[in-house]
Amino acid sequence: MMMVRWNMRLGLAALCGGALLVMLYWSRCTDITLRPSSILNEEQTKHNKVDIECLINGEYSVVCRRDHDEVYLPFSFIHKYFEVYGKITPADGIYDPRGTFATFENYNVEVRDRVKCISGIEGVPVSTQWEPKGFFYPTQIAQYGLAHYSKNLTEPEPRVKIIDDGDKNLGNWIVSTDATVSREFDTELKSNILRFTTSDQASSQVWCKVNISQDFVLSLDLRLKPNSSLTVVLQNKDKKETVYLHYVTSLQLIYALDDHIYYGIGVEHKWRRLTRDLVTDMQKGWALLDKAKRKSPRNKFKISSIILMGEGSAANIRVSTSEHMAHFFAAARWLVSTQRARGGWPVRARRRVASRVPDLRAGWHSAMSQGHGISVLARAFHRSKDVSYLRAAQRALHLLDVPSSAGGVKAMWMDKYVWYEEYPTKPPLFVLNGFIYTLLGLYDLHVIEGDNSISLAKKMFDDGMLSLKTLLPIFDTGSGSFYDLRHFTLGVSPNIARWDYHATHVNQLYLLAGLDPDPILINTAKRWEGYMQGKRAAHN
Amino acid sequence: MMMVRWNMRLGLAALCGGALLVMLYWSRCTDITLRPSSILNEEQTKHNKVDIECLINGEYSVVCRRDHDEVYLPFSFIHKYFEVYGKITPADGIYDPRGTFATFENYNVEVRDRVKCISGIEGVPVSTQWEPKGFFYPTQIAQYGLAHYSKNLTEPEPRVKIIDDGDKNLGNWIVSTDATVSREFDTELKSNILRFTTSDQASSQVWCKVNISQDFVLSLDLRLKPNSSLTVVLQNKDKKETVYLHYVTSLQLIYALDDHIYYGIGVEHKWRRLTRDLVTDMQKGWALLDKAKRKSPRNKFKISSIILMGEGSAANIRVSTSEHMAHFFAAARWLVSTQRARGGWPVRARRRVASRVPDLRAGWHSAMSQGHGISVLARAFHRSKDVSYLRAAQRALHLLDVPSSAGGVKAMWMDKYVWYEEYPTKPPLFVLNGFIYTLLGLYDLHVIEGDNSISLAKKMFDDGMLSLKTLLPIFDTGSGSFYDLRHFTLGVSPNIARWDYHATHVNQLYLLAGLDPDPILINTAKRWEGYMQGKRAAHN
Repeated sequence: MMMVRWNMRLGLAALCGGALLVMLYWSRCTDITLRPSSILNEEQTKHNKVDIECLINGEYSVVCRRDHDEVYLPFSFIHKYFEVYGKITPADGIYDPRGTFATFENYNVEVRDRVKCISGIEGVPVSTQWEPKGFFYPTQIAQYGLAHYSKNLTEPEPRVKIIDDGDKNLGNWIVSTDATVSREFDTELKSNILRFTTSDQASSQVWCKVNISQDFVLSLDLRLKPNSSLTVVLQNKDKKETVYLHYVTSLQLIYALDDHIYYGIGVEHKWRRLTRDLVTDMQKGWALLDKAKRKSPRNKFKISSIILMGEGSAANIRVSTSEHMAHFFAAARWLVSTQRARGGWPVRARRRVASRVPDLRAGWHSAMSQGHGISVLARAFHRSKDVSYLRAAQRALHLLDVPSSAGGVKAMWMDKYVWYEEYPTKPPLFVLNGFIYTLLGLYDLHVIEGDNSISLAKKMFDDGMLSLKTLLPIFDTGSGSFYDLRHFTLGVSPNIARWDYHATHVNQLYLLAGLDPDPILINTAKRWEGYMQGKRAAHN
Repeated sequence: MMMVRWNMRLGLAALCGGALLVMLYWSRCTDITLRPSSILNEEQTKHNKVDIECLINGEYSVVCRRDHDEVYLPFSFIHKYFEVYGKITPADGIYDPRGTFATFENYNVEVRDRVKCISGIEGVPVSTQWEPKGFFYPTQIAQYGLAHYSKNLTEPEPRVKIIDDGDKNLGNWIVSTDATVSREFDTELKSNILRFTTSDQASSQVWCKVNISQDFVLSLDLRLKPNSSLTVVLQNKDKKETVYLHYVTSLQLIYALDDHIYYGIGVEHKWRRLTRDLVTDMQKGWALLDKAKRKSPRNKFKISSIILMGEGSAANIRVSTSEHMAHFFAAARWLVSTQRARGGWPVRARRRVASRVPDLRAGWHSAMSQGHGISVLARAFHRSKDVSYLRAAQRALHLLDVPSSAGGVKAMWMDKYVWYEEYPTKPPLFVLNGFIYTLLGLYDLHVIEGDNSISLAKKMFDDGMLSLKTLLPIFDTGSGSFYDLRHFTLGVSPNIARWDYHATHVNQLYLLAGLDPDPILINTAKRWEGYMQGKRAAHN
């Protein structure tokens, strides 16, 4: 039996909340009976460390481990029983720009309600956070990329099932009488491909029964002529419910009607690699139909079949547990292709930040978008060695040196300390977490560029760290942290960081404390973590 | 029957704490029975407002007032029963430098344990706060002066009993056979005086039986030759205990042995006006003898007699409920006579302010001493028109413009905003309450000087107000206030203001809000007052 241990520092928000829950429920309604388990070996007995059966409320039996008077319950049980989350993480790993980004391996950007769906054309999320009709929010897209990059490093190897690789694994395609299929070598794709045509009749199709459970990320190379489509049929194993996911030659983002959900994948007749999390695509379609979110659809549905209609080609069709790097590079490519002349990714939604502050008008920039964008691009360059990513990252620095009043994101604290503004309002708000994320982007770029004493990223990082180390104490409430300094700039009531943002601050400070030995960082991180455990600053 | 109403804003510390206490005890242990009182008149009956008897726990009977379903308990009862304090205060009076100082009419400096006694020579308190052998602490002396000035304005007229004025009221002096008394007119004092001599024998004396209860402030003009004394005999009415207060020609501060307490009043053969709170003098003597503090000695003791020994003269002998202005001017004179060339009142005690900060070495200056000193001197000038007080106040400004590193009290926040430091440490601590008190001193002087556009006090006040209004938000914890900004300058855990200091901040801000219409002052005062009622800043 393996013990799950978890680290309290990373993923703090979930775990501290969890710890509280555990205690609460424990005393209230859980009765545990312990009895020696038959599963024990000599080594364990010698050290008086034995497996022991725990009866939980007489309802469940859990194999635990006993060491003298202490009994250890497996986290896998605690996880389910108390609905708390935790994972095995390195305790004191130093942050590395080639590695996971902060704690983003825990992020699941696409499931958020404010993500309308993943675009079929760009492969990146579309946000409805401040604009109901949906827009590309650079911060969210970068977080989507960073989350998948991080998950790729922390999750187990995905299972991959080849549906058709044109070589050793060929799909069993069933072809209607008025349809055709053929196989050939494509010089552009440098791969064997499947060509297909169907007639205008609805019954005319080329399809392949697949019957795959558990794994839901479909990827394939696809080139479609107009009015052609790829359809994936999903079936609920219990209820015999059927959902049709249509990927169609259209510019429309998403459309849903009854059991049919449509994603436009563009109209150009060119090869594109499509990588779709089918469950996400299904859930977003349901959300559009105002259907309630299903619990664990991954356990209840299976991929039943794949259908090609119209005219086009497909290749390298497979289904995986995950395709994190494909999602990551979709974000990186979006950042390169949409970057503007000044190096920015404007946010195309009006943003109301705080009362008494003029709204940010559509087209504003965010230091957090710039910083996160840089973090994505630095990693994309590291993985691909494609210099266009590096150049884009370097261009993204520019707006960090442009004052908010001139369309940039730079604020100054008392004319002395630079602050990269997540929301470049007038007056500035000095949001803490977005500023630190921007610093991480600068650090990432500096490291990925290699040691270079005249690096602009390094100078900006150093300047920002000086600001942070100087102003950090002002964010301390004595029992938590402030989200921003609006009470200073607006003269209003302070804006205290809620639990999860405070946890983010703590994680960010521990991370920076690994990069900079100034004791203010580690001391503040520890003190602020203490606040989460109920500690309070003393009064005089 | 008169209703006592009290204002929640001023004297907030006591009242908010009191309100809580009231509620707690109320539900726990107080049973109140109401029955109509016979004391009612026609007018009251007509409006259904009647006196009503309340039985408290079957133990006390209190006459209360009923208005329909509500019953009002007199504060005089609540005051004693719950040991809470309150007083009738003007609700929204604008601060006036000629009037009370902040809420100092509630201060009772001399009863504090850290006051060793009131000096017989200078008539001002001697502190043991940081120096067990006692020293003159300018801040404390100024507070003593300001408290008495304020009490003089808010308390009822004192009762005055003339013991001997050499004119209409003559004491019945009993003269030993080897002693003499004579009466004559003194040209220096411009008053009839009593001359006396006694022999070296202990039984040789001139004494006067007085038998006064309730009032204990003795004042007289006194001129003694060496080895002469004035003794006041106090008797405990119940226990027949006798205490002898000796005012002797000596430089010793205080000395006590058994029932004899000695105060040195100086050795020069000159007229001095002695004003002594006899109960305070008795209590401080007991403290020196490590006797427990008595409760309400003013109810239990009486002044039994006054004894003159040696050779000297006395005049204008009286006993009053209070002699606040005498105490006030004692403080003002001390400030004038001890002021140094740079206008400062150095603090002659080493002061440990905070760990990680070098101690302030004896001789340091405090902006609070300077500010309070100015507030005393401005009032002394206002009352006496003696320009030496005004000049001393103006000289006291100088050190506010001298950096702490050069022996002054000036710190700068980020090289931009001046802060007058209560404790001029390196690095600065930015103590809030002491800074605001300094601002009040500057305001006082400016107003007392009269409108003068080139007033240095006004410029210093304006500069300081700008600092205060700029930095005030940084003192906001979201649930209270910080005492200082040591977390910023030392990078340590924040120093949260305890309840009474937070209450002081609130009172100070309400006061300043009456002088400056900037909404940051009144809004912060209201928000911080809300924190005392359990309100909290929102989180995001």
